[in-house]
Amino acid sequence: MTSEAPFSPIPTRDLESAIKAVRFLSVDAVEKAQSGHPGTPMGLAGIAVELFVNQLRHQPKDPSWPARDRFVLSCGHASMLLYSILHLSGYDVTLDDLRDFRQWGSRTPGHPEVGHTPGVETTTGPLGQGIGNAVGLALASKMSEAQLGDKLGKLAAYDVFCICSDGDVMEGVAYEAASIAGHLKLGNLIVIYDDNHITIDGDTSIAFTEDVPARFAAMGWHVQRVDGHDGDALRAAIAEARRSELPSLIAARTKIGIGSPGKEGKSAAHGAPLGAEEVKKTKEAAGWPVEPTFYVPEEAKRPFVTRQKDLDAAYDAWKKAVSSLEPSERAKLEAALSVTVPSLPFEELLAAGGKAAAATRVISGKVQQVVAAKVPNLVGGAADLTSSVKVGISGSGSVSASDYSGRNIHFGIREHGMGAVLNGLALSGRYIPFGSTFLIFTDYMRPSMRLAALMKQRVIYVMTHDSVFLGEDGATHQPIEHLWSLRMIPGLDVVRPADAAECAWAWTHAVERQDGPTVIVASRQDLPVLGRKTTSKATFDKGAYVLSDDANPELVLIATGSEVGVAEEAATILRKSGRRIRVVSMPCVDLFLRQSESDREAILPKGVRRATFELGVTLPWAAIAGSDGILIGLDDFGASAPMERLAEEYKVTPAHVAARIQSAL
Amino acid sequence: MTSEAPFSPIPTRDLESAIKAVRFLSVDAVEKAQSGHPGTPMGLAGIAVELFVNQLRHQPKDPSWPARDRFVLSCGHASMLLYSILHLSGYDVTLDDLRDFRQWGSRTPGHPEVGHTPGVETTTGPLGQGIGNAVGLALASKMSEAQLGDKLGKLAAYDVFCICSDGDVMEGVAYEAASIAGHLKLGNLIVIYDDNHITIDGDTSIAFTEDVPARFAAMGWHVQRVDGHDGDALRAAIAEARRSELPSLIAARTKIGIGSPGKEGKSAAHGAPLGAEEVKKTKEAAGWPVEPTFYVPEEAKRPFVTRQKDLDAAYDAWKKAVSSLEPSERAKLEAALSVTVPSLPFEELLAAGGKAAAATRVISGKVQQVVAAKVPNLVGGAADLTSSVKVGISGSGSVSASDYSGRNIHFGIREHGMGAVLNGLALSGRYIPFGSTFLIFTDYMRPSMRLAALMKQRVIYVMTHDSVFLGEDGATHQPIEHLWSLRMIPGLDVVRPADAAECAWAWTHAVERQDGPTVIVASRQDLPVLGRKTTSKATFDKGAYVLSDDANPELVLIATGSEVGVAEEAATILRKSGRRIRVVSMPCVDLFLRQSESDREAILPKGVRRATFELGVTLPWAAIAGSDGILIGLDDFGASAPMERLAEEYKVTPAHVAARIQSAL
Repeated sequence: MTSEAPFSPIPTRDLESAIKAVRFLSVDAVEKAQSGHPGTPMGLAGIAVELFVNQLRHQPKDPSWPARDRFVLSCGHASMLLYSILHLSGYDVTLDDLRDFRQWGSRTPGHPEVGHTPGVETTTGPLGQGIGNAVGLALASKMSEAQLGDKLGKLAAYDVFCICSDGDVMEGVAYEAASIAGHLKLGNLIVIYDDNHITIDGDTSIAFTEDVPARFAAMGWHVQRVDGHDGDALRAAIAEARRSELPSLIAARTKIGIGSPGKEGKSAAHGAPLGAEEVKKTKEAAGWPVEPTFYVPEEAKRPFVTRQKDLDAAYDAWKKAVSSLEPSERAKLEAALSVTVPSLPFEELLAAGGKAAAATRVISGKVQQVVAAKVPNLVGGAADLTSSVKVGISGSGSVSASDYSGRNIHFGIREHGMGAVLNGLALSGRYIPFGSTFLIFTDYMRPSMRLAALMKQRVIYVMTHDSVFLGEDGATHQPIEHLWSLRMIPGLDVVRPADAAECAWAWTHAVERQDGPTVIVASRQDLPVLGRKTTSKATFDKGAYVLSDDANPELVLIATGSEVGVAEEAATILRKSGRRIRVVSMPCVDLFLRQSESDREAILPKGVRRATFELGVTLPWAAIAGSDGILIGLDDFGASAPMERLAEEYKVTPAHVAARIQSAL
Repeated sequence: MTSEAPFSPIPTRDLESAIKAVRFLSVDAVEKAQSGHPGTPMGLAGIAVELFVNQLRHQPKDPSWPARDRFVLSCGHASMLLYSILHLSGYDVTLDDLRDFRQWGSRTPGHPEVGHTPGVETTTGPLGQGIGNAVGLALASKMSEAQLGDKLGKLAAYDVFCICSDGDVMEGVAYEAASIAGHLKLGNLIVIYDDNHITIDGDTSIAFTEDVPARFAAMGWHVQRVDGHDGDALRAAIAEARRSELPSLIAARTKIGIGSPGKEGKSAAHGAPLGAEEVKKTKEAAGWPVEPTFYVPEEAKRPFVTRQKDLDAAYDAWKKAVSSLEPSERAKLEAALSVTVPSLPFEELLAAGGKAAAATRVISGKVQQVVAAKVPNLVGGAADLTSSVKVGISGSGSVSASDYSGRNIHFGIREHGMGAVLNGLALSGRYIPFGSTFLIFTDYMRPSMRLAALMKQRVIYVMTHDSVFLGEDGATHQPIEHLWSLRMIPGLDVVRPADAAECAWAWTHAVERQDGPTVIVASRQDLPVLGRKTTSKATFDKGAYVLSDDANPELVLIATGSEVGVAEEAATILRKSGRRIRVVSMPCVDLFLRQSESDREAILPKGVRRATFELGVTLPWAAIAGSDGILIGLDDFGASAPMERLAEEYKVTPAHVAARIQSAL
């Protein structure tokens, strides 16, 4: 970390009451809810108190202070640990909130949710994700520090502390993210691993016997082992970790449910209330009053009260340093510490895409260059497919351990780690991150994408090679169910552009959207230029629009992405035989479905038969095409062959599509 | 491995021509297809020849010999390596097949596909999966060896060899699976890691600087480093690996595209044809004729011809040993080496489920005990949630490094690793494997589930806590889009039973199905006993059936799983106000959709309005309910609260459902 502890420590003996208060607030809340996880908060209370009292440079009165140190509880099931310590630290989490643990509408849901509870930095629960978010948060600090340069960078830098469990370190996503952190030497990251030897199934030895610190050392981490209940030893280890230029893992041996006469060190302490009798015994053994519940003595509050003065001083000093900057420097700092998106110049994006037939992956890459020039906070990269997915920001370097100032990130062949790190970058509040791979591999990173949606984070995914028409790589690489299974994730917008104009709009939508992530889906193969009358941004803002039309149409043919051009050709064939066809391009089904009924009817008029055409599963299209809809797509796995052959075999050439519609009409 | 090399080695100098043949067959095939990956087969040719000539105990004339050693090419993009070596080894992969590389209907698709090409043991391409499959294959050998005991076990045991790439070892799924292998001390597994320092984006150092062997050592592996182009050193390393009781990693330093004057050691050799001029130069540099292409000199064939005699002898000896067994022993061995499912006693399964209201996770667990008693090849476990998901096979032990004879496997908190290992267990041909976690965490293992479907493997997933009604754990744990996004995977059947009878049927379907995987989805909460007239297996075999009915119904209310009981109550309310309602339970939508139109109409009569009710995304239900369908479900993320409160807030109590239908009618 190469940073000093920010304050002179409050000694371990003065933290005892606070530690007990965290334990019993957690125990009482789980007991009252009759639901939750008491044992881990009990075991981790000492570590949380040490972090929040002696280590974190934060400001409970201003949880969004951009320079605050970040704390991530990766083992989100230990949520009461976080809620208890937030309460004691002075965040707006009251005793009543704790009493409302796991109740409808409370600030204290079963797992911590960012944006919902002050002081919660990320939504955790699905294991491993928090470690990835912490890596992303640490990377964001390193990147903005480097991008701002020496003087301003100091005002941007923060440290990241993460507590994680056995389950977290067993998850592949955490391995991938930790490998990235080691590679990039994120010295501002300290992960404390709760080495309690217990999982739901019992002792970890039944499934997990690896040497975790040695594994992290192999990934380039600084590692230590410590007794997690020895406050002095823990503080010394954190000091040592701060001196290292590498990310640090501190394996802290703890006892789950510590102090519970019947459940200490047992998996019974993990996921169920201790029970009234056991709570009584545990409190008695600790010299803690059995009643009242949710008891917080003055002695427990004292360390936090004492520390608040230092926190105020640090916060005020930062504010003062910022306000004493030259206006241009201050503006530069502020622009780096938050994301403000200028209105994007649609015409310029459009021009960048070019006017020739091209693959949308190529066009998207060109459009992205303009976006990147206008939005300096746009950073990201690919999971080792940069040349295939076309996402590099030209004119900017790659982030590396020796230079974090670039905007291109090489995530390696680690899609899931990439997804979790992207979330951390977004949660820093400083970046609009993008990540890219082949559409098929969204399967590898789906849990992180879902969390981006749940957390309403502006993350952009560029997913190419979007259909069987990637051709020869075959069934293992050809998406079939992916478009629809991504559209099913609440809050995630899937945009599948058909040409340069739709690519320009896709990027505009993804960047300007403030309430969630967007997937931009692109083709491997070249697509034709669509002849449409207008290409203003408004053309696309309903998620669908009429591309070509006949008076009094008898069929609306709806297509997306690479199928739009084929649909147009099919319509031309049908029109030649006298059919009256409206062709609708629907680049964003999610957005179209959010429109008013009348807006939707303007595009899909009632009483006119509909056909849909997309190279993937057809079933959900029935919701748009109706009971008599003609659904053209692919409902089985693909195959390895050149795309022209596949088009013939799957009967999805313009002639085949026209014939299928003709026969259905 | 603690096994000897099966044959005296053919010396390195006698393998040179074979190695060159593998290289140039691969180069020629990629060149002819103008698509594919030449560089990796070139770099790995020596390793493949060593394995297939000197190490593998296999039988090209009988690719399904149950005691054969298994070879897994985890880096499936190097498929031409495998096709070339299979051709030279005498598998039914002809030169014409190689000429047809990546063409429609050929035996040589872009990535290897099991069941499609003789000698291919698993479908690879999505990185990391092959390592997981290899772990599962190795575990299957260890388990059947232990279950059969000393004498018969020897006839069942095989070794597993795997070649993997940088990309494979960077993937989290491979980490998880490797951690399992280390924990279980799978000494019959040797993984050769192609340490070529090159990925698509360039040198691995841009994203990957960890010490891979040290990491594997930390996971309990035996590790070595070797020059991958030094045949003698490689052979010595394999001999050393065979002496270890741990799984072995051999990091083999190779040069991608070796011998190509312009592309050796460069990422340009990775994913595109070398180009005619470069092919010419490379062949000339190797002293290989430029023409004809697909050239195989006698010298290249010789090692394989020589070895075939040993392979025949080993194969015949095994056959003889088996045929000389006592009939009962032989039957026992044969039963262990293949999967034959007896017709399951439906009544017994039904009785096991009990007649009380209970959660389907509990009922499923009881039914599974009967299935396990009838199907000894059923093995599996959970990702550290055994007590929550109720899947342990009682009366059987847990697999451990000291005793592989149990049928319960503790996968640890490694859903994706579990998925890949389950595939390997199924691919062994010896087991029907099951794996279990919460439904939400299918997102973590989706790539493996998709591959199970693509490979048509009989894997059973038991996924519990299947809706927002898991309650207090909140949005991070509550599935919304999962049922439908699983149903979208071609070939994967999703069964969501509503009670004991449907649980009995779910298990019957999953076990008796021979062409793919099944997800059994179960509730956390107790469900009522449904009052239906008949509970024979045939009741459920269409995927849906009429649970209760009125004469001349005006509405069909379709529900699944935990919503069926609520639908029945809602129907009772509606009937009291004079409505004529048919309630349909649809435990398997996939199966229902595969029925004939008339069978479907018998259940969902034409012209009768339909409502659907399932606690998840509603949109795809339109395909079943039709344009005027009433779709009741949840299209946004859930929340943390007791389930009773959630039912009120989301308006999905019987009264609310009845009211919503009433107002829509």
